[in-house]
Amino acid sequence: MSVVGVDVGGTKIAAALVGTGHAILDARRTPTPSDGDALLREVARLVDELCAGAASPPVAVGLGIASLLDDHGRALWSTHLDIADRMPAAELTAMLGIPVAVGNDANVAALAEARLGAARAHRSSITLTVGTGIGGGVVIDGRIFRGARASGAELGHVVVDADGPPCLGGCPSRGCVEAMSSGTAVAREARALAAADPGGRLAQVQGERGALTAEDVAALARGGDSASIAILAAAGRYLGVALASLANVLSPDIFVIGGGMGSAVGEFVLGPAREEYRRRALPPNASAPVVAAELGSQAGVLGAAILAAEAVA
Amino acid sequence: MSVVGVDVGGTKIAAALVGTGHAILDARRTPTPSDGDALLREVARLVDELCAGAASPPVAVGLGIASLLDDHGRALWSTHLDIADRMPAAELTAMLGIPVAVGNDANVAALAEARLGAARAHRSSITLTVGTGIGGGVVIDGRIFRGARASGAELGHVVVDADGPPCLGGCPSRGCVEAMSSGTAVAREARALAAADPGGRLAQVQGERGALTAEDVAALARGGDSASIAILAAAGRYLGVALASLANVLSPDIFVIGGGMGSAVGEFVLGPAREEYRRRALPPNASAPVVAAELGSQAGVLGAAILAAEAVA
Repeated sequence: MSVVGVDVGGTKIAAALVGTGHAILDARRTPTPSDGDALLREVARLVDELCAGAASPPVAVGLGIASLLDDHGRALWSTHLDIADRMPAAELTAMLGIPVAVGNDANVAALAEARLGAARAHRSSITLTVGTGIGGGVVIDGRIFRGARASGAELGHVVVDADGPPCLGGCPSRGCVEAMSSGTAVAREARALAAADPGGRLAQVQGERGALTAEDVAALARGGDSASIAILAAAGRYLGVALASLANVLSPDIFVIGGGMGSAVGEFVLGPAREEYRRRALPPNASAPVVAAELGSQAGVLGAAILAAEAVA
Repeated sequence: MSVVGVDVGGTKIAAALVGTGHAILDARRTPTPSDGDALLREVARLVDELCAGAASPPVAVGLGIASLLDDHGRALWSTHLDIADRMPAAELTAMLGIPVAVGNDANVAALAEARLGAARAHRSSITLTVGTGIGGGVVIDGRIFRGARASGAELGHVVVDADGPPCLGGCPSRGCVEAMSSGTAVAREARALAAADPGGRLAQVQGERGALTAEDVAALARGGDSASIAILAAAGRYLGVALASLANVLSPDIFVIGGGMGSAVGEFVLGPAREEYRRRALPPNASAPVVAAELGSQAGVLGAAILAAEAVA
């Protein structure tokens, strides 16, 4: 039996044909169209291509999508995608003629890490995907937990500093962990430091490149630049503050940190995050391991494939 | 059928004989002994007294207790009570000879508000009890939700200001909502303001009383003192920051605010809390009503009585 897992992000759509034992048999990738109709057509096209090449026809499609959804799979709110008020799973089911299940992209990635990745030995886990923004997912007893209604588990939007900088991507708050620990936040702090220290390595790289990204900061940190290491440590400490709050509310057995900031920069961020979390959480909630994700960019399509398989189970 | 509900707080134990329709038929109250053995004996004595006066013998006892508990009812950690590592329900069952169910006190109060109080028309709710500290409870589909393990739902220990003042009662963190919005926090801010403005009303009351409490601040606010109103508004704003974080994680249908700070000072705190929450939560999570609790100090015994009734249902 095979299924198709699709991961619809703000910039790209990834799709994979997934067979027995979660093996990725074939994969496609394309930029995300800005128009909602074109987006769904593009997903359908990728699925059709993967179906055409499959030994036996896939039985279902799973869709992880960068949007808040309601309990019926309606897209409520998305920073990046033009799909508000649409029913992506129902529309694709009509287009493709096979069952399509939908979930929030960060939740679906968390499901993959919980079942197949870094949290597979644990009954419950929280996975944070720290990239341009911060997405998250909670898995308890093998199931995605989204709070009382499906619009919960937006773990990047836990405030760590009430008077911090404005949050990103349409979030109306300030000082959310996404505003303090994401790649965007790291780039912002790097630019501020480059401006404050025109002779430093950050200013030098900014001069060469015309801009500074979180990847530049990570590269400088690996090269030993102390200002860059300090920026990543500050992002990690704020991440640890959010982990402490989440531990006191949800008491997971393990935290998994994925995304570019979780893997590429590794212990520069994870070390300070772990330390701050341990120091702050209430004693009974302070002992969850804080580990790097294992599935990398495949978490999205693998989690979507799990959704698909369960939709027809 | 009747049951006994017992609410074991840091300073007092309240117990009630509860009959059909959640009617309180008889009640007792006593200071909380500092020793754990004495505490359990005192609970047993109150239950025995209530049983002796009951028309028909109560069938079960429910216990709300100011402690973190594990999934088996073992007391993990308590700021106020000498019961670490004990099994209060099992020990009382042995002493009393009838079933005893146990829950965290703030969770049990939240259960009462969800079933019988301010949230009774809603499928899910979060109740925060804002007094000396801040306790909380999450109820989804009529059941207490504590996170993946029973030590979660410690909602007072969500950070709102990473660099804020040290938290209270043994919590190792800083700037938790308990440190910013509790009665203890209000009294701390009032003392600071009295020191900074020796001619103001706060300093005057402090001079007369020798100390300043949250109740003094509330009384001054009701009398129109602008400094006191500002202190309560700041506490309310931080409370609203925590509500926004909790809404983004747990997406409840309603927030209920109880305890002295929730009821006595009413809209001085609730108004700013509601406004800050609405302003900060992600749009799909920003519309839960924020209302005052309805059951007052009876929430604890009534919630414990619900636990008791369900233990034998």
